[in-house]
Amino acid sequence: MKIQGKPYHTIWISPDNDQVIQIIDQRYLPHKLVIENLATSRQVATAIRDMHLRGAPLIGAAAAYGMYLACLEAPNNFLFDDYIQKTAIILKKSRPTAVDLQWAVDQQMYIISKTETPDLKIKAALEQAHSIKQVSIDGCRKIGEHGLTIIEKIAAQKSGEPVHILTHCNAGWLACVDYGTATAPIYLAHDKGIPVHVWVDETRPRNQGARLTAFELLQHGVPHTVITDNVGGHLMQHGMVDMVLVGTDRTTRTGDVANKIGTYLKALAAKDNHIPFYVGLPSSTIDWSIRDGLTEIPIEERSADEVKYIAGLHQKEMKKVLLTPKKSPAANYAFDVTPARLVTGLITERGICKANETSILELFPEQRSN
Amino acid sequence: MKIQGKPYHTIWISPDNDQVIQIIDQRYLPHKLVIENLATSRQVATAIRDMHLRGAPLIGAAAAYGMYLACLEAPNNFLFDDYIQKTAIILKKSRPTAVDLQWAVDQQMYIISKTETPDLKIKAALEQAHSIKQVSIDGCRKIGEHGLTIIEKIAAQKSGEPVHILTHCNAGWLACVDYGTATAPIYLAHDKGIPVHVWVDETRPRNQGARLTAFELLQHGVPHTVITDNVGGHLMQHGMVDMVLVGTDRTTRTGDVANKIGTYLKALAAKDNHIPFYVGLPSSTIDWSIRDGLTEIPIEERSADEVKYIAGLHQKEMKKVLLTPKKSPAANYAFDVTPARLVTGLITERGICKANETSILELFPEQRSN
Repeated sequence: MKIQGKPYHTIWISPDNDQVIQIIDQRYLPHKLVIENLATSRQVATAIRDMHLRGAPLIGAAAAYGMYLACLEAPNNFLFDDYIQKTAIILKKSRPTAVDLQWAVDQQMYIISKTETPDLKIKAALEQAHSIKQVSIDGCRKIGEHGLTIIEKIAAQKSGEPVHILTHCNAGWLACVDYGTATAPIYLAHDKGIPVHVWVDETRPRNQGARLTAFELLQHGVPHTVITDNVGGHLMQHGMVDMVLVGTDRTTRTGDVANKIGTYLKALAAKDNHIPFYVGLPSSTIDWSIRDGLTEIPIEERSADEVKYIAGLHQKEMKKVLLTPKKSPAANYAFDVTPARLVTGLITERGICKANETSILELFPEQRSN
Repeated sequence: MKIQGKPYHTIWISPDNDQVIQIIDQRYLPHKLVIENLATSRQVATAIRDMHLRGAPLIGAAAAYGMYLACLEAPNNFLFDDYIQKTAIILKKSRPTAVDLQWAVDQQMYIISKTETPDLKIKAALEQAHSIKQVSIDGCRKIGEHGLTIIEKIAAQKSGEPVHILTHCNAGWLACVDYGTATAPIYLAHDKGIPVHVWVDETRPRNQGARLTAFELLQHGVPHTVITDNVGGHLMQHGMVDMVLVGTDRTTRTGDVANKIGTYLKALAAKDNHIPFYVGLPSSTIDWSIRDGLTEIPIEERSADEVKYIAGLHQKEMKKVLLTPKKSPAANYAFDVTPARLVTGLITERGICKANETSILELFPEQRSN
């Protein structure tokens, strides 16, 4: 998608040096666009660990490129394999809960192990990193194409008025390589000339909506308005939202959706006001082993300081300010689970299905026996 | 209620000089306790306009004391009445939408006009200001006593475990003179030794929960935890909330409740999880002239900058930081309406009723003909 009029991915090989990876350092967004060079696998691990980049698909792609850099760094002797294995462990530990990361590193380990010479290993690792990146782009684009049909149907009933879409958190291209998951249908609609307007939940406490989704949409030229997380219900009561479209971190085989904390409240409001509530997701985030999101998905508790303090721009510098009494305790649950009964549909790379096991398995018949 | 172990009201006559009013300057909360002296009626108007104090009952009491100061300031000749009238206009304009303020000033105008000499007028205005203040204290205490019965019933089923109460915004004693509205039952329960714990919604964008409710509860020693506005639904899904208790800015005769933006989302979650949702209110906030909250209560839109910027403490100084891309638009709806069907009960100074016209009129039969 575009930044300052120019198409970007979130990760790419430096045009000046094919042994250097470049990423958008997201810690400075939305106030500053910083491109970071990653010249070593250790730098990639640090970038993942310290959240210069985030989002499951992007972390996966970054780790794959990290393994390519490891092949370049490894000593050209009997210690090669040892170095690769150590790096794999370092990369996997950089975000231990990121499933895509573990998978991408394992894929690279496998191809490196079954290739003969160091030169060929380097080449194979680079090609597979490109391929992992491309799979993410293609998957997001597919989600976009399927979701676009929903937006087109709503637009057809609005005689030129914009389709108002509410989104929560950042399931945007900054979390992927391009397009995003929940945002992909929005970008495709916008690029096709369908008038859309996005209500962007700021998404406390980490404000991924206010910082990242707003930045993405602003830079790509998509009309949008930032709102606090409290506002969506009011907008829906007054006919100002045509659909809700969010991402997910993990979805059960029965269609329960774990996503950023607060998603459940928006789903309740959508249901109460007869507004469709859709979830955009790559099927890799479906956890085929679980059926009950509320009891089976553990919800991460993060630091209370993320609630008590917030960072923002003050006179061109980032400053962190205290919002609560210093001694008041705070709790910080990172995700919640939206029960399938509140979900109108899941938009996957294979198509749209209802949020129930039968409908999901029609799209993914190979999972029936799981 | 207590601050640093000492009982406070939000407004009082200076113990050193009965011609000076003292208030807690709430702009510095929760980081600093600042007591402000108001020695003139103009200073009272400024304090109201610039929100050194806020909350309908407190604004009403402050305006009443402002009129007392006006009597002290007025020239002791034929210009006395003229001065009083001009001051009344200034005070009324300091928060034009505050009904309690208009009412308190009118009450003072009436008693001043029907009293004979300037000395007697001063005395009458002071007495009536005291009385307006006392009526607020008594009303809140009554709400507290009625609401306490609900908390006691829940506590009886919890065998010593704390009663978990979720509240939104600040309907606390800082908005009143003492006790608060939604918080009154909580303070009375706590003071009686019933274990309570309050989930405090931070209440973006102005963070009245994180700033004021948390401060109140911390200072009075009531166990509490600050959460972002996104968290309540998750807590209710997991049985971590026993009741929701909020205030209201305006309630229809049919029981629709206008309150701080986001209240509706919590009411939906309470309903979805079979958790009682109560509203504490002085009956003065019931608008007997309207029946449909959603169509008849206009919702104030405030500055987008309240969403885009937030103030907090940075190295002992208040700093305002930018949270969004500078060029992203934001919308700031201040209130929403919770339909009566989601409200378990209204806790008024006369008792508890259901949120429907029949039940409300049983408590307020004098309004039947309105």
